Amino acid sequence: MPYEFITGYTNGFDDVHFVDLRSDTISKPTQAMRDSMYTAQVGDSVYGEDPSVNELERRSAELVGKEDAVFVPSGTMANLLAIMVHCQKRGSEIICGNRGHTFRFEQGGPSFIAGVSQNCLTNLDDGTFDLKEMQERIRSIGDIHEPITSLIIIENTHNMCGGRVLPLEWIDELATIAKRHNLPVHMDGARLMNAAVASKTPPARICRDVDSVCFCLSKGLAAPVGSVLAGSQQFCTLARRYRKALGGGMRQCGFLAAAGIVAIQNLERLQLDHDKTMRIAKAINNMNSDLVRVDLKSVQTNILMVHVDERRVNAQEFLQRLADVKETDTYRVSIKAASRDAGCCRFVMYWEITDEDVEMVIRKLELTILEFHARSKLVQIIDQQ
Amino acid sequence: MPYEFITGYTNGFDDVHFVDLRSDTISKPTQAMRDSMYTAQVGDSVYGEDPSVNELERRSAELVGKEDAVFVPSGTMANLLAIMVHCQKRGSEIICGNRGHTFRFEQGGPSFIAGVSQNCLTNLDDGTFDLKEMQERIRSIGDIHEPITSLIIIENTHNMCGGRVLPLEWIDELATIAKRHNLPVHMDGARLMNAAVASKTPPARICRDVDSVCFCLSKGLAAPVGSVLAGSQQFCTLARRYRKALGGGMRQCGFLAAAGIVAIQNLERLQLDHDKTMRIAKAINNMNSDLVRVDLKSVQTNILMVHVDERRVNAQEFLQRLADVKETDTYRVSIKAASRDAGCCRFVMYWEITDEDVEMVIRKLELTILEFHARSKLVQIIDQQ
Amino acid sequence: MPYEFITGYTNGFDDVHFVDLRSDTISKPTQAMRDSMYTAQVGDSVYGEDPSVNELERRSAELVGKEDAVFVPSGTMANLLAIMVHCQKRGSEIICGNRGHTFRFEQGGPSFIAGVSQNCLTNLDDGTFDLKEMQERIRSIGDIHEPITSLIIIENTHNMCGGRVLPLEWIDELATIAKRHNLPVHMDGARLMNAAVASKTPPARICRDVDSVCFCLSKGLAAPVGSVLAGSQQFCTLARRYRKALGGGMRQCGFLAAAGIVAIQNLERLQLDHDKTMRIAKAINNMNSDLVRVDLKSVQTNILMVHVDERRVNAQEFLQRLADVKETDTYRVSIKAASRDAGCCRFVMYWEITDEDVEMVIRKLELTILEFHARSKLVQIIDQQ
Amino acid sequence: MPYEFITGYTNGFDDVHFVDLRSDTISKPTQAMRDSMYTAQVGDSVYGEDPSVNELERRSAELVGKEDAVFVPSGTMANLLAIMVHCQKRGSEIICGNRGHTFRFEQGGPSFIAGVSQNCLTNLDDGTFDLKEMQERIRSIGDIHEPITSLIIIENTHNMCGGRVLPLEWIDELATIAKRHNLPVHMDGARLMNAAVASKTPPARICRDVDSVCFCLSKGLAAPVGSVLAGSQQFCTLARRYRKALGGGMRQCGFLAAAGIVAIQNLERLQLDHDKTMRIAKAINNMNSDLVRVDLKSVQTNILMVHVDERRVNAQEFLQRLADVKETDTYRVSIKAASRDAGCCRFVMYWEITDEDVEMVIRKLELTILEFHARSKLVQIIDQQ
Repeated sequence: MPYEFITGYTNGFDDVHFVDLRSDTISKPTQAMRDSMYTAQVGDSVYGEDPSVNELERRSAELVGKEDAVFVPSGTMANLLAIMVHCQKRGSEIICGNRGHTFRFEQGGPSFIAGVSQNCLTNLDDGTFDLKEMQERIRSIGDIHEPITSLIIIENTHNMCGGRVLPLEWIDELATIAKRHNLPVHMDGARLMNAAVASKTPPARICRDVDSVCFCLSKGLAAPVGSVLAGSQQFCTLARRYRKALGGGMRQCGFLAAAGIVAIQNLERLQLDHDKTMRIAKAINNMNSDLVRVDLKSVQTNILMVHVDERRVNAQEFLQRLADVKETDTYRVSIKAASRDAGCCRFVMYWEITDEDVEMVIRKLELTILEFHARSKLVQIIDQQ
Repeated sequence: MPYEFITGYTNGFDDVHFVDLRSDTISKPTQAMRDSMYTAQVGDSVYGEDPSVNELERRSAELVGKEDAVFVPSGTMANLLAIMVHCQKRGSEIICGNRGHTFRFEQGGPSFIAGVSQNCLTNLDDGTFDLKEMQERIRSIGDIHEPITSLIIIENTHNMCGGRVLPLEWIDELATIAKRHNLPVHMDGARLMNAAVASKTPPARICRDVDSVCFCLSKGLAAPVGSVLAGSQQFCTLARRYRKALGGGMRQCGFLAAAGIVAIQNLERLQLDHDKTMRIAKAINNMNSDLVRVDLKSVQTNILMVHVDERRVNAQEFLQRLADVKETDTYRVSIKAASRDAGCCRFVMYWEITDEDVEMVIRKLELTILEFHARSKLVQIIDQQ
Repeated sequence: MPYEFITGYTNGFDDVHFVDLRSDTISKPTQAMRDSMYTAQVGDSVYGEDPSVNELERRSAELVGKEDAVFVPSGTMANLLAIMVHCQKRGSEIICGNRGHTFRFEQGGPSFIAGVSQNCLTNLDDGTFDLKEMQERIRSIGDIHEPITSLIIIENTHNMCGGRVLPLEWIDELATIAKRHNLPVHMDGARLMNAAVASKTPPARICRDVDSVCFCLSKGLAAPVGSVLAGSQQFCTLARRYRKALGGGMRQCGFLAAAGIVAIQNLERLQLDHDKTMRIAKAINNMNSDLVRVDLKSVQTNILMVHVDERRVNAQEFLQRLADVKETDTYRVSIKAASRDAGCCRFVMYWEITDEDVEMVIRKLELTILEFHARSKLVQIIDQQ
Repeated sequence: MPYEFITGYTNGFDDVHFVDLRSDTISKPTQAMRDSMYTAQVGDSVYGEDPSVNELERRSAELVGKEDAVFVPSGTMANLLAIMVHCQKRGSEIICGNRGHTFRFEQGGPSFIAGVSQNCLTNLDDGTFDLKEMQERIRSIGDIHEPITSLIIIENTHNMCGGRVLPLEWIDELATIAKRHNLPVHMDGARLMNAAVASKTPPARICRDVDSVCFCLSKGLAAPVGSVLAGSQQFCTLARRYRKALGGGMRQCGFLAAAGIVAIQNLERLQLDHDKTMRIAKAINNMNSDLVRVDLKSVQTNILMVHVDERRVNAQEFLQRLADVKETDTYRVSIKAASRDAGCCRFVMYWEITDEDVEMVIRKLELTILEFHARSKLVQIIDQQ
């Protein structure tokens, strides 16, 4: 089950304040982006003639320190292309984390589209996995019973692990092992820029030793559409070829690229999203609730995982209450968020979430947590009788 | 070999008039489209929340007379999705034409991405194929040696056949046979609107009996990016699912859809492109050349196939001369076009080609043809000595 | 439609003489083969430890003049492996004949199992195709719209073309072109040994310039099961790997190999099958029927194509009569054969068909043809009234 | 890394006694099987006309309590076919154990041949996995981000878990959950008959609630080649179709089936293999070594896992010593076995291992263990100085 969404019942009130924290994918482009799109120079990008796309690709490659980059319609296509390019042998296998996006949320495309197996390691809570175990999983072409390990995929920041930034030393160590085994590494950096800003490390340094990396223009960066996939010249040539086959070759997509160029010019702004996230996290933490809690040290970027004690309150139920506005509510706020599982909800920040929104989210959360505490106590009393 | 492009040498002249007739894919959006994009309402289209996309899909479905429609980044993805949805059984086979886009220009994606075989019939010059032969090709699941015919694909207008409009009676007859064999039909209508305008037949009538159809917003219709794939509700639900796996799920792509909505509101404008094409065709025809000729009755839409007598002049050579501006040229025009093979060039019209452009193209063509005639005569004289 | 089989009605007679000419695949092993299997030395062939398999592979490689050979359960697997090994790039395409086995009778496996497209040339009646057209079909990785031609497949003898032997000069010329384009050639030599015997050319000479070749042990050669796929050392290493993945790795299959070793030791015996085929062909030819006829010069090996004038007699109907024994028949023979299409039947010879069988087949054919002539004349008379 | 094999150095002694315990796949057929093969009635099995194959399939279906059964060349093909038949939707996913054969030892074929993902649960030491976790892994078609869980695979006995018999109650419970989710279950019963004999439970009872099951004729059952895949009529029809595409359609394979029929007639004989395994296990256990040990309660069938303390002795080193015959050895035995990893060796029994072999294996093991103990003590003394 991926993130499930809930619709709130607002009792017909027309003064409800809505805050949508389901995902940063819903962020809309800024006015600067609209302006940039309006005047964008475009051309046929399939022929390599769109100046805006070429510019975005050039700048993106530079940003992540790779030779070349390719603009694609989505992060899923970016990851799929990376897999298709790196895994050239029949019977190829990827080593990746079991909470990773490619394994969890890409519909099994690596297998049914690219013919590649995924050999999953258990993701630790910080988005990493055990490197000794990784080494033991590597399989070579020598034995005819086995797949051929052809690629290692890591995710940074790690979505399902709450937007955690992969430790730099871990990436470096992983890359060293990979090199020793002659294995390419792909970084699914859908939220790479959040990692860079949060860790105050240039993206190019983070990706220094990976063979390919992709990042999303349309999540925290707020551009309307697209991801960029970067790597060597040769890698990108092949990625462009497969992009065409998948149907990702777009004509005058310079409009989208123009917004993307704006998006990557002000990365520092992401720190504001991280700050908002931390404010909400601290507010919950300050309540010292044993029913609803956050792990402060895991809050590093724009994703907030809120854990509920599922024996007493279900994540869905919690979210429903956040979304609903009851008649008795003196404070009319409806919050949309997502549940990861029965014991965990996800809240994601992005540029359109204002300070006022944050305040309102905090108040509604406080009220809701108190309400569930009261209910829980009542249930306890009844049970004890 | 698909269309090959040539770069002209313009001898440093700075007053050269350029006309680019390589393809209608290079058409840029109109100002009305830019305006519409600038103010477009958008949302997360992956969640079905982009109002512009929803509007485009609703209008497109209506236009082609289907229950639902799906916006996708390219015609290649539209065709691939149709194949993936219609061909659900392992060992599925498509019947299609041997000059069709899916067989010629989609990189073999139907096989290596969708696992489907293509059983090609010989396309006649009008884009059709023999229906009796088609019937004989149909293979059922009954015999374990054979693939399972699961889909018939037709292309309208037919690109490689010079933009020909498929005869309505042929489509109707084909659909009747398909129905009898319980086989779905997909129409690759990349240039369907050209067919509709040229034949003065509503798109919905043309597609009446096909199970799915796609058309391009970014060719003659001039929108920047995208195609629409239409079919039944059930078909579209599955197409959306596979679109996500291929990486065609785009977030705030309402910007592109907004341009698309403008594009489909003035279909009649395509007639202007057809007229321009015919003017050039007639000009060539009037020269009564045995070296360079057109087949007037095959000129129906915005594509002009010009045949050269390849024993005396190669298509590449002909195109090179059209692109070059020589010092002695009193008339400085550089035309870009594409060669289909050694004996055939393709010229494609679109909205940005002005009447002046057409005039200049005609003059340059006339001069070039005369030049080649002179050369040919000289060669003949030398050969006879 | 592949070959369809018919069941005869024999009116309860218990002295019916049955002759089964549906295919040489139904040939049973000789006593020598049974003896050889009984005493065969075997081992675990997956570990490369089966001495009989190793011996068969060594001898087979020598026979066709290749470095190494691999024993596989069927001709279909042999062809599929060749495709999998030769076509390493995503988007690979094969050039082959449209009446070839891989395109017609292997369930589309090249596409849905190996992800490869088949670009079919029209097979001429002698099993060849036009080499100039072949050259024009070759497509390289350079254009992102197109598949990558990665392999040429030819079939020798050509089943659907009536067991015709490919002319040696044609193979040589094809191989020269292929080499020039750096393209491997695979020969589907299911009945290669028939070609060798009929043309009095050593198999190794026929395969001299192809990169891989397979031949069937279980058709005319009469072994119970299996084919051998031969090529370079490197080719076979990879073929063994993929064989394992497909599930063709068999343990103590030395039993089958032992029969195979017997099979390839007496190739000359195939000439007897060819002679029998020609005797029947000549008998039909001698009748000078315009209803049922053979093309004598196309009868080269153990396959006989009998053409019926389908306006007057359907192939299925003709076969039914050959299989039926009517009460009035003084001559009680039931012949099983296969129809290729409405106008063509296929009869195949193998070692168990005796001279007596041949005689009986001829007599039954003669009677049947006369019967149909009488009927046809009657119909004509009635039509004229 | 699958099982790695070692070659012993026997110092040129010609009276060495060899015992090969690498796998039961190397078991050779019995004389009764050879006799049965010699006189086997055969026919073209692709046409369904091989009486021995039909008989084997009928008996096998009965044995495991299914409607029909299909003879295939290997267990890998049996599993692959089951996956292909059960997983009909693009984006299908299997739930299976991470030590299972399909995930570990089938080259990733489920992904690159069948296009299916494997979602692995952690196998417990008894071959099972957690059923609560299994339930949480099930994913439906509803969410476009996720694969579609289409099949659950279990392995019985479980090879990598030391030949453990899956508890019947666990299978029953798993099947109940699967049914509730409308999910088919496939049992990879390569060594199902060992499970049946060891647990004194009829195979049909063990498989009662699974939708398909395969078992190997060529492991402990000692037939030369092949597996049988059983399920419903409809399942088998489709399996036969895909078998043909994979190249598993074999002509007169009744020879192999004849041996298979003998194999399944004396299942009780497997108990002897289990007894031999236990004798060796007990002998090791009796040594009370902390260096080399077995887990007696996990020894249930014909597979013996021997664990070495890898800090002091490597499995490869241990196996090497078992295979070597040193000049000073008064007792000349060379044992071949396989290592699973650095800390674990696998010994497998089959019918050709005699009581004398067992005795010799025990003595060699004892001597070797003592030798390593001595060495270990010496190392310890040196380390302490």
